[in-house]
Amino acid sequence: MTDNFHTIVIGAGSGGLTVAYGLASIGRRVALIEAHHVGGDCTNVGCIPSKTLIHLAQQCDGDGTAALARVRQKRDALRAKETQEFGAVANLSLIFGRARIIAPHQVAVAPSDGGERILTARHIVIATGARPRLLTVPGLPAERALTNERIFEIDHTPQHLAIIGGGAVGVELAFAFRNLGSRVSIIDIAPRVVTRYPPEASHAIEESLRARGVTLYLNARVDSYDEAAHTLCVEYAGQTTLLEEVDAVLIAVGRERNIEGLGLEKAGVRVTPRDGIVTDAYGRTSVPTIYAVGDVTATSAFTHSANAQGRRVVQRIAFPWLPARDPEPLFPGVVFSDPEVATVGMSPQQIAQRYHPNLIKRIHINLATQTDRGYTDDVRQGFILVDAIRLTGRILGVTIVAPKASEMISFFTLAIQERISLYRLYRIVYPYPTFSSGIQKVADTFLRDTLTGLPGELCAYLRYRLAKSKGAMGAAPASAVVK
Amino acid sequence: MTDNFHTIVIGAGSGGLTVAYGLASIGRRVALIEAHHVGGDCTNVGCIPSKTLIHLAQQCDGDGTAALARVRQKRDALRAKETQEFGAVANLSLIFGRARIIAPHQVAVAPSDGGERILTARHIVIATGARPRLLTVPGLPAERALTNERIFEIDHTPQHLAIIGGGAVGVELAFAFRNLGSRVSIIDIAPRVVTRYPPEASHAIEESLRARGVTLYLNARVDSYDEAAHTLCVEYAGQTTLLEEVDAVLIAVGRERNIEGLGLEKAGVRVTPRDGIVTDAYGRTSVPTIYAVGDVTATSAFTHSANAQGRRVVQRIAFPWLPARDPEPLFPGVVFSDPEVATVGMSPQQIAQRYHPNLIKRIHINLATQTDRGYTDDVRQGFILVDAIRLTGRILGVTIVAPKASEMISFFTLAIQERISLYRLYRIVYPYPTFSSGIQKVADTFLRDTLTGLPGELCAYLRYRLAKSKGAMGAAPASAVVK
Repeated sequence: MTDNFHTIVIGAGSGGLTVAYGLASIGRRVALIEAHHVGGDCTNVGCIPSKTLIHLAQQCDGDGTAALARVRQKRDALRAKETQEFGAVANLSLIFGRARIIAPHQVAVAPSDGGERILTARHIVIATGARPRLLTVPGLPAERALTNERIFEIDHTPQHLAIIGGGAVGVELAFAFRNLGSRVSIIDIAPRVVTRYPPEASHAIEESLRARGVTLYLNARVDSYDEAAHTLCVEYAGQTTLLEEVDAVLIAVGRERNIEGLGLEKAGVRVTPRDGIVTDAYGRTSVPTIYAVGDVTATSAFTHSANAQGRRVVQRIAFPWLPARDPEPLFPGVVFSDPEVATVGMSPQQIAQRYHPNLIKRIHINLATQTDRGYTDDVRQGFILVDAIRLTGRILGVTIVAPKASEMISFFTLAIQERISLYRLYRIVYPYPTFSSGIQKVADTFLRDTLTGLPGELCAYLRYRLAKSKGAMGAAPASAVVK
Repeated sequence: MTDNFHTIVIGAGSGGLTVAYGLASIGRRVALIEAHHVGGDCTNVGCIPSKTLIHLAQQCDGDGTAALARVRQKRDALRAKETQEFGAVANLSLIFGRARIIAPHQVAVAPSDGGERILTARHIVIATGARPRLLTVPGLPAERALTNERIFEIDHTPQHLAIIGGGAVGVELAFAFRNLGSRVSIIDIAPRVVTRYPPEASHAIEESLRARGVTLYLNARVDSYDEAAHTLCVEYAGQTTLLEEVDAVLIAVGRERNIEGLGLEKAGVRVTPRDGIVTDAYGRTSVPTIYAVGDVTATSAFTHSANAQGRRVVQRIAFPWLPARDPEPLFPGVVFSDPEVATVGMSPQQIAQRYHPNLIKRIHINLATQTDRGYTDDVRQGFILVDAIRLTGRILGVTIVAPKASEMISFFTLAIQERISLYRLYRIVYPYPTFSSGIQKVADTFLRDTLTGLPGELCAYLRYRLAKSKGAMGAAPASAVVK
């Protein structure tokens, strides 16, 4: 076997597998190099075990020990299946080992079984992902310090799980372990949980966490752990608070890109501290033969983002003559909390940077009080929040908090990406009784407010549009006006 | 008070309330006549109590007696709230009594408190809904014969509930009472349940019912009931079967329109046995001053359909100068079973009547085996079934079976109504892991099959398109070709 390939993919997680399988399936010779397990974070320490645990924890007979064992069983089965399947794909060589780029077309691999191999290829794709950021808590023994990489290995649910970090990972696992009977506390330095989402979403999730008995320490910092007393010492609300009987600490304070030791600097691949590996809209780095997808880039750290990037890289590498003009698609964001949070489009901050506030119409529909499904299902927290351009009804950004927000958000991904205005969403019939019928109320509200205040809406629209076209504000594409 | 109104609405269910509130809120004087309860079937004997019961039955501590009491409590609270709110709407006179049309502008009302009032108006809207069709079971005492109008009045869950009729009502309540601990049997004369949906959906629901221990007697008919022995005698599979310990029988064999005693014939309103009151796309009957919405018409018997029709009637009556050219919107259909069934667009039969089978590309994605959400959630039944036109990717009809299909279907309502092809759905990023990511697989499958067999696809498309344009087949609009 020659060590000459069409493409070398470094990392067999979601993004890398998408590229490797996509190219191999159309006949390109691919080397896929993986240092740990096929499936990456998603299969091994992310989506698959966490969503399985969340699901089992919602069942009536939620037995923690059994649930954790089942999570490992399902994860191992999937990992074995993926390893076997990808090992058997024609044109795809799965190599276990560590990779380092030594030239724009060359990768050195240190296989798990020793030695070194030099591989050459026309293209190199970096998909090495990220790992949990670590945090040292003075006094905390290593066996009590968990991250998402270790938490699915524990045998029993903790008596009191302290979670440092109220992001998506921390919040999702807080619901799961609380449902399985653990006492759960979340400590975050920020004033709210899930800070990547609008404050309304944070508050809904905080309410839901508290209603379930999770204790939140916001604007707080962890000081130290006392192994003898099993207490976690937290600085909170101007004083020192002792969290008692803490037998496990989940550190979920963000992620760090796996970009060390890859030889990026020597190869000339541009990296910035904020965005990681810099790429164009089709994943190409500053070195034309080298691409990057997934968590090593600036994209949102989701499996679906990595997959979507991977598909675009496949298109670019395999069909370079196809036009590559499509802007990056919209990446939805989801937290699988209870209720779930889902968002797509521009965030309120992005909108504020780009548009004058008077040009924006914000609509908030409370799913608990304004939909009959909220009434029948005794829902306490939930909403659809839409930011749109006044008069035209063009949708800019949407956040949904609802039991199955993750299944509702694609409606708005489609609407925004296809530039379907609120006028047209008004004409859709939504099934009753569902949370989706809240979309009807969003459209009703927009139409009522727009039509009853038409002269004012028109003036506001023209004033800020004209100001914008004179360069007073950031430019929006001309096609922003609804079709 | 004069008895002269702008519009008289007969029936305060979903459709009638939509019209009455819509017109009153823009200053038209409306008389709303109701013979029973405000809220109609939906609030009183339909969606609200059934969805509340379904939700409570899914909770871990499903106590039947408590759940039924809670259902009545929530229904009564909502009914009282709606009665009070609609009684207080400006310009709206809520009158309890029976109405009869005596002339194109005149309605006689026999109020609940006696006497008769003659009301006149420019427009009359009939929204009297439907009632459960009755079925006589020899030997069955009246107190054991339930319909959806009486089942929410029972105090305790039956020991063995026999449900005659496997339509949406029968199936939804079968899941609910089974979850609450009743033994449940479904008897239907048809070979499958939910016959309005594609056979694939029926089979998934039958599997799920059986997995939960519900016994199905299909191709069967009820013979008689023996009160002494508490047995229901059923003709099934060529022999007589005795269902034992049956203490309640739910009759859910369809619905009959409430069109008697309204004076329709005398007024000249056209009625057909199949379609009920015949209307145009904006709800106008054969008498120009008289409109009809909801279950008295041929529309699908859903609250959301009645609401949508009501909105169009409001537009037609209040703004007659607005263009009334929009075709009727797409009405999704939903069964709140477990998993749920949702459908939108043309049914397989409608497609077969209109298009040559070779012009249709059918895509079936199994959500249990082909999505990771199916894997994490141990889903057994579930699919997305899409019928599209070959080559163009124009979507004609969709059926989804999934835990929250009701929240997923609006994506396709939007796609079909806005004529967004499968090529464009391919470019959407769906959150992972969700059942919605099955839509990605639908689009992938379409693209792969179309691109790999392009010459064949093109030939097939042109052959059947040309045949059609020569009149050999039913005509499709020219805009059927994807934009």
